[in-house]
Amino acid sequence: MTANQDGNGNWGNPLKARRLGIDTQDEAVIFLRKDSEICRSEGFASHARVQVTHGEKSIVATLFQITANTLHHFEAGFSDSAWYRLGLTEAGEVTVRHPAPLESLGSVRSKVYGHRLSYPAFYSMISDVVAGRYSGIQLSSLITACAARALDIEETIALTRSMVEVGDKLTWQSKPVVDKHSVGGLPGNRTTPIVVAIVAACGLTIPKTSSRAITSPAGTADVMETLTRIDLDLPQMRRVIEREGGCIVWGGAVRLSPADDIFIRVERVLDLDSEGQLVASVLSKKIAAGASHVVLDLPIGPTAKIRSQQAADEISASLIQVADAFGLRVTVVKGDGTQPIGRGIGPALEAKDVLAVLKGSPDAPAELRARALCLAGAALEIGGAAPVGEGFALAEAVLNDGRALAKFQRICEAQGGMREPPEANYKKMICATHSGHVTGIDNRKLARLAKLAGAPDDKAAGVLMHVRLGDSVLQGETLYTLHAESPGELEYALNYARHAGDIITVSAP
Amino acid sequence: MTANQDGNGNWGNPLKARRLGIDTQDEAVIFLRKDSEICRSEGFASHARVQVTHGEKSIVATLFQITANTLHHFEAGFSDSAWYRLGLTEAGEVTVRHPAPLESLGSVRSKVYGHRLSYPAFYSMISDVVAGRYSGIQLSSLITACAARALDIEETIALTRSMVEVGDKLTWQSKPVVDKHSVGGLPGNRTTPIVVAIVAACGLTIPKTSSRAITSPAGTADVMETLTRIDLDLPQMRRVIEREGGCIVWGGAVRLSPADDIFIRVERVLDLDSEGQLVASVLSKKIAAGASHVVLDLPIGPTAKIRSQQAADEISASLIQVADAFGLRVTVVKGDGTQPIGRGIGPALEAKDVLAVLKGSPDAPAELRARALCLAGAALEIGGAAPVGEGFALAEAVLNDGRALAKFQRICEAQGGMREPPEANYKKMICATHSGHVTGIDNRKLARLAKLAGAPDDKAAGVLMHVRLGDSVLQGETLYTLHAESPGELEYALNYARHAGDIITVSAP
Repeated sequence: MTANQDGNGNWGNPLKARRLGIDTQDEAVIFLRKDSEICRSEGFASHARVQVTHGEKSIVATLFQITANTLHHFEAGFSDSAWYRLGLTEAGEVTVRHPAPLESLGSVRSKVYGHRLSYPAFYSMISDVVAGRYSGIQLSSLITACAARALDIEETIALTRSMVEVGDKLTWQSKPVVDKHSVGGLPGNRTTPIVVAIVAACGLTIPKTSSRAITSPAGTADVMETLTRIDLDLPQMRRVIEREGGCIVWGGAVRLSPADDIFIRVERVLDLDSEGQLVASVLSKKIAAGASHVVLDLPIGPTAKIRSQQAADEISASLIQVADAFGLRVTVVKGDGTQPIGRGIGPALEAKDVLAVLKGSPDAPAELRARALCLAGAALEIGGAAPVGEGFALAEAVLNDGRALAKFQRICEAQGGMREPPEANYKKMICATHSGHVTGIDNRKLARLAKLAGAPDDKAAGVLMHVRLGDSVLQGETLYTLHAESPGELEYALNYARHAGDIITVSAP
Repeated sequence: MTANQDGNGNWGNPLKARRLGIDTQDEAVIFLRKDSEICRSEGFASHARVQVTHGEKSIVATLFQITANTLHHFEAGFSDSAWYRLGLTEAGEVTVRHPAPLESLGSVRSKVYGHRLSYPAFYSMISDVVAGRYSGIQLSSLITACAARALDIEETIALTRSMVEVGDKLTWQSKPVVDKHSVGGLPGNRTTPIVVAIVAACGLTIPKTSSRAITSPAGTADVMETLTRIDLDLPQMRRVIEREGGCIVWGGAVRLSPADDIFIRVERVLDLDSEGQLVASVLSKKIAAGASHVVLDLPIGPTAKIRSQQAADEISASLIQVADAFGLRVTVVKGDGTQPIGRGIGPALEAKDVLAVLKGSPDAPAELRARALCLAGAALEIGGAAPVGEGFALAEAVLNDGRALAKFQRICEAQGGMREPPEANYKKMICATHSGHVTGIDNRKLARLAKLAGAPDDKAAGVLMHVRLGDSVLQGETLYTLHAESPGELEYALNYARHAGDIITVSAP
């Protein structure tokens, strides 16, 4: 036994923690000297997954080995993410050892080979994911397997339940608790803040938690972040609801279905999501948030996420069936998904559309207003605030007389103060090369364009639409404007716009 | 335009390269200051994939951002792998920009959703993989998709052809060119070095390239590395073949089917491989190596990779059909895969078994000798060195009279000199807890045990078997010995041995 063997027979431990100031995003990284006693005695290879413990906290991190003199033999360097997750301070001590074998990876393989997974299998998989025991490579395999070997209803229920169980769960005094979700894929479909404002203004409880973008240029959380604070914890969210009846916060900060946010980061890299995971993602958040009644918005279009009436019917059936298993009542509202709803695509640009609708500005996007009223009407009806058939009219009245705007402002104030969305420093107008009618808008290419311009990470970046399907345009008239926060990204998006083929199709008359 | 904008409008470039002495294995990592001009102007986020160029060389690397003062604003830090791949020297200059969108990722998604892929789709995918454009997360999705959505014969041919085309291809003066491969999953099945020695001793050409382990405790390359140099380049390999007629080198160093080695590293983490990829992996190496005739060894057993006669028939059919499309003649030899062939499991331990057979030691593993003679016989017949039915006898004669050993020694000398395999410093005998007969050996658990002990990265690590199926043992008699290079790993393996349930089943008489 050497001087540095701990009571459990671990050689080379403990180690002194050192923060290296390296941002690796969500991936926890630990740096150890290759010739350190710990690496030699434990036989750690570079890129190995190791278990790091500091006091009560323990994480699995990726090991990078240092071959230079940057670290001492009994030091362990940490990326920022690992540092925060372990709650470390300078000169804090850690122990490093082999992690327990990841047994739930057997379920991933089982899924790859086409076997059905049970609730216990999903639960242990999701528990391991939330504990940070899956590397990016392993998460990717899990997500790809569930996309390639479609989950059936029972598996989707099991996945949903697992995702609910591993996180926090909210309960509310007043019933019903209404919620709302749009199944993405349609740029500029930012109805949620308007719906929440109207529904809360009518006295219903609507504790809305939103996701960041998965594969789109902006999620509701990204948009709201340009207007107010969204990373509220549970007690803060509860105070907002008690005061205003509604809120729009980021789901990740309140740990409702925390696995979802981990999946989202990998799905983003792969540009991939599947029906089973989509249903589990949507409903696990609603169930965990304590909703009793949910309105789901399903835009249908050839380049939206839901491409046909048939696909919409299928996913509606799955959503309703899975929701039913949890005693959740669901109304599905299908709508036009052939073109962007608002004008802006990207966090700040969509926030400006939302404000224009709430303020009743004459240039507010009419389609966004109409869609929001439709969904708010459905929510008022399902929540019992309006008789069937009268929801839309009530929603319109509340929007027109300014009650919705006032409620929205109060919600933002309650969440931490309202602010103005940022404006991009770099813009470029894209004009029609010939006159004619707009006969096609490629939502996927538009979303790609907004992402290349920097959305959603750059809040002001994105695309501002100047035309809609059917509009007649003259040669040289602006079709859309690119917004970016850096010249590099503006150039990058512009380059794509030049080579991607028809993003907006203008047909000669 | 700032002082540091290059002619192509790239802000913040060029940057001074600095080697940070960080071993990240195959993952190329670049470190930039978060507040550097390049990160701000290009809008790079941490964990982004960036294109790094140095002179003629260009790679895609993962970006980690530095929030401390470790780097200057116009410096770029590099992991060892990125440093070598770019051929950098201190004070060398690099430019960093956004990589082109990875179009072939669309084919991965297409496969996930069950569409068949064409040759051009596979080719562009494999080209991108070999160029290092896929991150670990993206590679993992590709591999999982091909496992979940089984490739049909045409797709397997297309994948095989793509894997051949993106690498080097060998041609040989003398024909036929014989080759041999064992489909893994069976520990201690190290016949290749013996077969190559016998076949080359009989005057045939057998330019053997081998893989490292995928999910097993040792590949032939790992085993041979304990005896001689295996990372020969093409001209070196050619010189060995011209002199000795045979060689046993690592396929990765000669860039025959280089995609295979990249896949292997991810498959290892996932413990996953599929029939289509297995066939493409085996045959692409043989085709690229210029083989005309191949003997394939298929061990069948409940815990081997091929578990049933039916599975063996299916994979044989695929192998022969795909080989046929490339004008390659294949003989499949099916064999017993119910227990390890040799005594050792792990690189050095298996090398010792090989030497014992070649030297005709009285304690040489009889089953390893028999299996090697069987495969060598088939190779001699398919290669025309022996009439049908007389291959085994010729192989036996060449082994018995020492010609095989002499040839093996000359091959090792030609590859760079022969050495002794290392001996483990830490050993632990596992003994029978009661008397009886050995009625079961779990190959998968044994392989796992050898890997936990450190194989294949630790050459001396693994398991040495003392019993075979049917043996009678007394209480306290040794069943197997664990070998490890570090006490931590010995402890880790031992812990698994204690809790894994029956690895070797001893049934009371």
